[in-house]
Amino acid sequence: MSTWAWIKDLKGAINSDVEVRGWLHNRRGNKNLHFLQLRDGTGFVQAVVDKSTIGDAEFERIGAYGYESSMKVFGKAVEDKRSKLGVEIQVSRVELVGESKDYPIQISKDVPNIEKLLDVRHLWMRSPKPRAILKIRSEVIQAIRQFYYERDYVCFDSPIFTPNACEGTSTLFETEYFGNPMYLSQSGQLYGEAGALAFGKVVVFGPTFRAEKSKTRRHLTEFWMIEPEVAWLELDGIMDLAEEKLEYIAQWCLKRCRPELEILERDLSKLESVKRPFPRISYSEVQKVLAQKKDEFAKSSDPELKKLSGDILKNGPGDDLGAADETAISMQYDRPVMIHRYPSEVKAFYMKRDPKDPRFALCVDVIAPEGVGEIIGGAQREDSHDALVERIKEHKLPMEAFQWYLDLRKYGTVPHGGFGLGLERTVQWISGTHHVRETIPFPRTIVRMSP
Amino acid sequence: MSTWAWIKDLKGAINSDVEVRGWLHNRRGNKNLHFLQLRDGTGFVQAVVDKSTIGDAEFERIGAYGYESSMKVFGKAVEDKRSKLGVEIQVSRVELVGESKDYPIQISKDVPNIEKLLDVRHLWMRSPKPRAILKIRSEVIQAIRQFYYERDYVCFDSPIFTPNACEGTSTLFETEYFGNPMYLSQSGQLYGEAGALAFGKVVVFGPTFRAEKSKTRRHLTEFWMIEPEVAWLELDGIMDLAEEKLEYIAQWCLKRCRPELEILERDLSKLESVKRPFPRISYSEVQKVLAQKKDEFAKSSDPELKKLSGDILKNGPGDDLGAADETAISMQYDRPVMIHRYPSEVKAFYMKRDPKDPRFALCVDVIAPEGVGEIIGGAQREDSHDALVERIKEHKLPMEAFQWYLDLRKYGTVPHGGFGLGLERTVQWISGTHHVRETIPFPRTIVRMSP
Repeated sequence: MSTWAWIKDLKGAINSDVEVRGWLHNRRGNKNLHFLQLRDGTGFVQAVVDKSTIGDAEFERIGAYGYESSMKVFGKAVEDKRSKLGVEIQVSRVELVGESKDYPIQISKDVPNIEKLLDVRHLWMRSPKPRAILKIRSEVIQAIRQFYYERDYVCFDSPIFTPNACEGTSTLFETEYFGNPMYLSQSGQLYGEAGALAFGKVVVFGPTFRAEKSKTRRHLTEFWMIEPEVAWLELDGIMDLAEEKLEYIAQWCLKRCRPELEILERDLSKLESVKRPFPRISYSEVQKVLAQKKDEFAKSSDPELKKLSGDILKNGPGDDLGAADETAISMQYDRPVMIHRYPSEVKAFYMKRDPKDPRFALCVDVIAPEGVGEIIGGAQREDSHDALVERIKEHKLPMEAFQWYLDLRKYGTVPHGGFGLGLERTVQWISGTHHVRETIPFPRTIVRMSP
Repeated sequence: MSTWAWIKDLKGAINSDVEVRGWLHNRRGNKNLHFLQLRDGTGFVQAVVDKSTIGDAEFERIGAYGYESSMKVFGKAVEDKRSKLGVEIQVSRVELVGESKDYPIQISKDVPNIEKLLDVRHLWMRSPKPRAILKIRSEVIQAIRQFYYERDYVCFDSPIFTPNACEGTSTLFETEYFGNPMYLSQSGQLYGEAGALAFGKVVVFGPTFRAEKSKTRRHLTEFWMIEPEVAWLELDGIMDLAEEKLEYIAQWCLKRCRPELEILERDLSKLESVKRPFPRISYSEVQKVLAQKKDEFAKSSDPELKKLSGDILKNGPGDDLGAADETAISMQYDRPVMIHRYPSEVKAFYMKRDPKDPRFALCVDVIAPEGVGEIIGGAQREDSHDALVERIKEHKLPMEAFQWYLDLRKYGTVPHGGFGLGLERTVQWISGTHHVRETIPFPRTIVRMSP
């Protein structure tokens, strides 16, 4: 009598009769032995089929199964020190469940065309690397949930349907809602602020949408954001929370995603160094550092640095930072960098201005290492009713649409703030994935609508 | 030197000097004492202001603060056995942070008009009952996350943007996606099936959208679903998983939401009885029971039962069950009821037919007690490629749109299944809330688009 076991649990079944249910991921062999590489979603195991045990006809039949055929494999689990799992199966019987002919993904293909693989995303995710990235995504989600739950945050779902195009419609998706226009949420923050004033500490965790026309490796039209919002929290506290959380995520993944990080050949030292405190640099200091780096890199013999030099500070002083600026700054450190107090002009209307110098906002962007760019954008919010009315006027926004938001300043306002963490960019950084589209099961970009 | 503490932690600070930051929820008093009821999102505490301690001018000033004014209150935490918290504050100083005049919600209002309160939902959620419901929602979410994480499910986000109007457009929301139509997801299941065949066990957790024209207490246009999907899982296993999960949620909330359930005056015995096994009744058996109940209730002297009798079996034999049918069945039990094997005609094309009697589908609906209705709908999926092609033709669905879904049956199909749990209806049931719109921070219905 054999017992069905998931592959990850086989180590505990050595010398027992087992049943493995899985798919034929790969195979090799000779005229007397088949070495079947099976996967079941929880891991990979080798199953050895010996012609002398199983008989000629059966051996031949098994030899004809195509990649991704599904089967029940019965046999004995034996120790195998050469394999990562430490176990292999000596097969006594194979029962085919679902055949598979001409599987469209070739395992040995050297230079994959990612867009073609995304056309069969529903199958490609079975392969080791995509599977590893999505497994890490799942662990990052759990790490974040656990982080906030341990700290007594209330999980607070903001609405996806939002009635007003508050900040212009250029990157908004619109839908028809029983005859009225409705827009898909770009951020849950404004609603999260209402939550913070009711619950103290909340976290919004949901999908957000931007009609992003950029075809860069950092952009998706549909992506998930995690947005904590906290009453009484000011800029320094926001930065403390951000670095505590990123350290927590990195440590969690180092502990729980070793096999996946190994499959992806991730340099673990890049995650091991993610320890508090992170560097905190003001936008004004960053400008000086960038000017130095621009000169330094221009004189470099490394052509990549030379090229980077040309792109540094392209936006001019007082503007937001560009991708090259972020890359040049993050290169200086072995952990994420926090850049605070950007010019208030380039930042959102709801950010509180620095009372010490109102040209700057009490905001922070956290830049991940290795060119991933901004993974967190946060700020202390403007908590004065009258100052907020001023900002709404300056930004020529529709006052009517913000009445409920102004109410939060009218009935017992308090200092408060929070940030948004981009889930996909975080997974991109942790897993060392080049393009953000591989960090979500079914990516959506300007060129990618299906499957 | 006093330390800032959240109200929920005050019990550990008895006889210390503390600072409480909060909002004035309610007040009473006389000419010598103010009893301020403060809330900070984590709880409620009484702060006692004594005129003889604080002085006449200050006493008068504090007496003028309106409901929901925010303040820092300094004083000594002392034991108070009469209060639930067990602590009150003897105030030495009050610092006003944000004033609040003419707060639009009246605490003593007897018959609330829910739609009017939803107009100020951003403020109403500060009140004890709405706060308690949303706190329970947060705990239900964590319970579900934890349940699946403990059981090695991979969290798998299905896309919100879906390219095809597979099952007709009548309840679909459409958006324009760079010149093409795109639809908002009504369920992540089909994508979850791809995940199950790659990862073994997955759970999709995200918002779903239905352009529901019904104005019932069970319907929202935007609601959250949790959809596990598992390879090798057949109908009995699906029912096992459903009852294990509902028991887990009920027990979690009994353990962690006592104060909130008390505020809502929830009958805890209704949750304590939620223990496995749940009754499992086939659709065919249900028809017989309903016929009996229809007769029985018709003869009842209870006018409600008499009325219910008239609505039972309105849909006729072979049709889906109506709300009255679900209510009549659920009244027979003290825990959720699982109704399995509905006629395949009334169920979705992807459900596998019962090999023992193909007129029926291998599906299950779980009906919550107390008139909440269906909270789970699940099924074993059709795993035969050719049978699925047949179903798609019978349902006159566009074959082209399902090519990727058919691939899952072409390359190593296996038996598999899962279900969708409606988050809001689950919270409605656990919290004993009459209308589902109160179980989500910012509800969206046909008549409710803002704030």
